[in-house]
Amino acid sequence: MNIIEKDLVIVGAGPAGLAAALYGARNRYSTVALDKFAPGGQINLTDKIENYPGIDSISGADMAMNLYMQAQKFGAEIAMGVEVTELNKLPNDKIEVKTNNETYHAKVVILTPGSSYRNLGVPGEDKFRNAGSGVSYCGPCDAPFFQDKEVIAIGGGNVAVEDALHLAKYCKKVTLIHRRDEFRAEPILVEELLEEAKKGIINIKYNTVVTSINGTDRVQSATLQNVQTKETEEHPCDGVFIFVGAVPNTSFLKGVIDLDESGFIKCNAADLSTSMPGVYVAGDCRVGATMQLATAIGDGVAATIYMKQYIQHHAAKWQ
Amino acid sequence: MNIIEKDLVIVGAGPAGLAAALYGARNRYSTVALDKFAPGGQINLTDKIENYPGIDSISGADMAMNLYMQAQKFGAEIAMGVEVTELNKLPNDKIEVKTNNETYHAKVVILTPGSSYRNLGVPGEDKFRNAGSGVSYCGPCDAPFFQDKEVIAIGGGNVAVEDALHLAKYCKKVTLIHRRDEFRAEPILVEELLEEAKKGIINIKYNTVVTSINGTDRVQSATLQNVQTKETEEHPCDGVFIFVGAVPNTSFLKGVIDLDESGFIKCNAADLSTSMPGVYVAGDCRVGATMQLATAIGDGVAATIYMKQYIQHHAAKWQ
Repeated sequence: MNIIEKDLVIVGAGPAGLAAALYGARNRYSTVALDKFAPGGQINLTDKIENYPGIDSISGADMAMNLYMQAQKFGAEIAMGVEVTELNKLPNDKIEVKTNNETYHAKVVILTPGSSYRNLGVPGEDKFRNAGSGVSYCGPCDAPFFQDKEVIAIGGGNVAVEDALHLAKYCKKVTLIHRRDEFRAEPILVEELLEEAKKGIINIKYNTVVTSINGTDRVQSATLQNVQTKETEEHPCDGVFIFVGAVPNTSFLKGVIDLDESGFIKCNAADLSTSMPGVYVAGDCRVGATMQLATAIGDGVAATIYMKQYIQHHAAKWQ
Repeated sequence: MNIIEKDLVIVGAGPAGLAAALYGARNRYSTVALDKFAPGGQINLTDKIENYPGIDSISGADMAMNLYMQAQKFGAEIAMGVEVTELNKLPNDKIEVKTNNETYHAKVVILTPGSSYRNLGVPGEDKFRNAGSGVSYCGPCDAPFFQDKEVIAIGGGNVAVEDALHLAKYCKKVTLIHRRDEFRAEPILVEELLEEAKKGIINIKYNTVVTSINGTDRVQSATLQNVQTKETEEHPCDGVFIFVGAVPNTSFLKGVIDLDESGFIKCNAADLSTSMPGVYVAGDCRVGATMQLATAIGDGVAATIYMKQYIQHHAAKWQ
């Protein structure tokens, strides 16, 4: 089998991976970014981005294309349809990256597989998740598009409560739907939520689940069901925010790289190094990630700078 | 004296500060960013930015304006001509920010004062430092603009050696000028430098200083002087890269916030918190900063997310 030698192999071509590819290539490292799907990752699902500093407003698809073109311009290779199956440390300290296709030997690997929002899995969710038609998984990203609108938010953890509070700063009405009778979120957040609920914008429905999201061109209502009485009601709303967790795309790393109990990649935040020397991490898949486009991109750039020292310290060996 | 109450006071309105202002305001925190000068910080000195992911090419001044307008659009206040003179922790856990003008009481402070490149202080340096006329302080930023050109690089530390190696990937000829007969840089870097020098692109002049940078519209030569023989020569070149260090703008924090021996702000890289609770840091002024536009902006955004928990834990106290 053919082995392809590279200075830098990037696993994932979302924003963090493409930013790392841009910097890797500008630094004249031979660089390839591998992705199962199209470049851009999760931002392809985002209708409009207004919180990336320096760009007033851009569609997710256009941003993905910009990142892709820019990385290519400086000589980075971006290989699509490639699934990484295995990472191995070689005796010469390089890292073997096995895929469904080629096998790479890399001086350094940057892991940017990203994470996926956990789906609710109800009818209507897929239909309305694209192009700003009303289903969102990110409060801070999309709240401003729901100014003076009525939305429902779903979930019971920290993110659900924080983002419901955040939505209340924009929306006319926020109905927080939780399937249990108690929140998992930190008590202090729950206190703040209950305090805010007294003001009338936030309304909490316990022991309730959403069974479908309804509408023609965009979200017009959600069907709610009480888990105890099994009674259902149709609840009119302009948007549905689903806050039921994120799943890092790291199952291929289990047993190879240290992960936390949720599957996020453990790293030294000071230099983004992982438990395997020469393997760095950037973006939404790492412990401590802030799940924003700008921070994923900042991570991707930082990783290419932190990795330089590692390469230089092995330069004699690899000559 | 009037006290202005704010949720978030940001010290510095460079890229990190403006990114934090954008996010602070989007999160509906009352937010002000204070700066001695105009918004944008060091990028105002940059002719062309081609390494900010998502924007193919933009002038530093335009980027500064974009960041400024975007932060204002969401309600952040940006106050210019304001010099912060003192930070004090108040008994109610808020932070007093004294300036040459108003005094602020903030729930949270994000420090983004940036850093300044140390100047060489020779004739011609100021004249050619703007608008791509040939003087640069950043190898990775500006190397691609000197493709197949001849440049000199000045310095003897890690950055000087690393960036001279980087320039050699683009330039026809790189003359590295060092005032001593030995480099301060790590031995492994020096080895690589000497190895590269054998290939003919890099030429090293020891015991030499630059006494002036010359040209009409742009850099055409530098005057070099041997510090032992005092002999001078005029050395033709298209660019002069000055790598004699960076100075963080943190003197006002001495004795208040923990700094390292070079004046960079110490922080917990995992949440950007400093030694004073409620005070966070972002950008070029912090220990571990990678001195890139994208990483400064990523830092600014991340700080606004990490600070949320701190604010929530004090919410009851501040109600």
